[in-house]
Amino acid sequence: MGLMVRLQSTTKARYIRLDYVRGVEELREAEVALETPVTIVVNGAELVTLFASPSDLKELAIGHLLGQGVIRAVEEVKSLEVLSSRVSVETKRDVSDRVSEYGRLRVITSACGSTEDFYQILDQIDHPYVKSDYTVTLSTLVEAVRELNKLSVKGHLLAVHTSGLFEEGRLVAYAEDVGRHNSIDKVIGKAALQGVEFGSTILVTTGRQPADAILKCARVGIPISVSIREPIHSGIFAAWRTGVTLVCGARGSKIDIYTHPRRIRYTFGSPKEPFST
Amino acid sequence: MGLMVRLQSTTKARYIRLDYVRGVEELREAEVALETPVTIVVNGAELVTLFASPSDLKELAIGHLLGQGVIRAVEEVKSLEVLSSRVSVETKRDVSDRVSEYGRLRVITSACGSTEDFYQILDQIDHPYVKSDYTVTLSTLVEAVRELNKLSVKGHLLAVHTSGLFEEGRLVAYAEDVGRHNSIDKVIGKAALQGVEFGSTILVTTGRQPADAILKCARVGIPISVSIREPIHSGIFAAWRTGVTLVCGARGSKIDIYTHPRRIRYTFGSPKEPFST
Repeated sequence: MGLMVRLQSTTKARYIRLDYVRGVEELREAEVALETPVTIVVNGAELVTLFASPSDLKELAIGHLLGQGVIRAVEEVKSLEVLSSRVSVETKRDVSDRVSEYGRLRVITSACGSTEDFYQILDQIDHPYVKSDYTVTLSTLVEAVRELNKLSVKGHLLAVHTSGLFEEGRLVAYAEDVGRHNSIDKVIGKAALQGVEFGSTILVTTGRQPADAILKCARVGIPISVSIREPIHSGIFAAWRTGVTLVCGARGSKIDIYTHPRRIRYTFGSPKEPFST
Repeated sequence: MGLMVRLQSTTKARYIRLDYVRGVEELREAEVALETPVTIVVNGAELVTLFASPSDLKELAIGHLLGQGVIRAVEEVKSLEVLSSRVSVETKRDVSDRVSEYGRLRVITSACGSTEDFYQILDQIDHPYVKSDYTVTLSTLVEAVRELNKLSVKGHLLAVHTSGLFEEGRLVAYAEDVGRHNSIDKVIGKAALQGVEFGSTILVTTGRQPADAILKCARVGIPISVSIREPIHSGIFAAWRTGVTLVCGARGSKIDIYTHPRRIRYTFGSPKEPFST
């Protein structure tokens, strides 16, 4: 405690591999993902503890605070200190109103008793709306997915989620984490620290995208969110409400566009908004 | 509110399918997973709100309470009422000490500041130890994985996690959920309600298995936990400490045994405990 510990995100584990077709047993060693509780402290008070891969903790904290709306820009951070797996952030201005809002959202969802209420809350939230008129060609999008998949090969073996942020088609941030939300927080944090203009970016992630993942994109202004997984309804709903172009099932030779297809340019067909309430 | 709402766990969503190899665009409709906040109330006080697929809520609550140690057996439940997505549980005896413990664990993890502390906490927890001498043949195990995979085909399409509990090789509980922890809670709940003897069961799940998932098994006494995914180190550590046989990467023609291989019988090789601290 009190010491700066170099955190590893993987470790070695031994296991017995049984190949039951060939009838072979081997004692092997593999690299496996670590996870640890990461506590984010804002202006002296503990905000949240996330279970995360112990790497890129600065970026995790910045991205989480941006994605949850506790800070609106990296410039609002006065200082940031990582001590072991505790990240302490001081802000320039008082953000106690936003910290309360962070808490309020949790209280609202725990007080609410039905799916109808949940969607009503999603509806009532003073949600951000992504107005960016950024568009990409289908081939740029497909190339971004391919690039993330290439980078994710090791992550898949480790059962971690990976996310990448592409600005004008170029990868500007990449992160791995045992938690899909954490991997998104990390790339948002990394990009924000580089001063990336989120309005012309694409997020590509191996994780599923429910409403909370989409709201992270919307809050920082990422216009296009792509998952290699299948959709979750709350994510589709949130994407439609917040103006995010949601692409799911991006693997093999297809992609599925669930909301706001206007941002994806292709030469065949004529995209209509597929989502309607 | 106050009305019993029939909860659906999926809904329809329209999307644009782009086949960029053939250059074909289609407007399609798919079944997608829903998620909703489910609040568990114990003896009048809100315990937790989980984001879950809105199905099998009774089982979700029972399984969560068992897996987190708030109740030790289904028989401790006096009444259980599901009103929309709020599950109210009354217990026969006072469980306020266990509710405090449930809260304490969260406080401990949020107060702790390093990976070392995290493992120390895992170590210090008055953890259950699964003493069951239940053994299975490799082919029984492989057959259970195959059966879960067959049932999971639709779940995979919906991007939900699935779990199955097998008693003496026979499937006794099956559940799907957007959350991997929820799917485990649900099968534990379903099996507990049927009076299943956990000491001779195998849990098979599509989700990863970090420490918290393993602790759920240990608390109810499930001796063998199998995931089709790759391992997480905290799960290996927790399985070793709690006496759970942990099998990961169960797909294709192989399985990987990470802890306590004695419970799996096969004719080739001679299993040694692969895990050491």
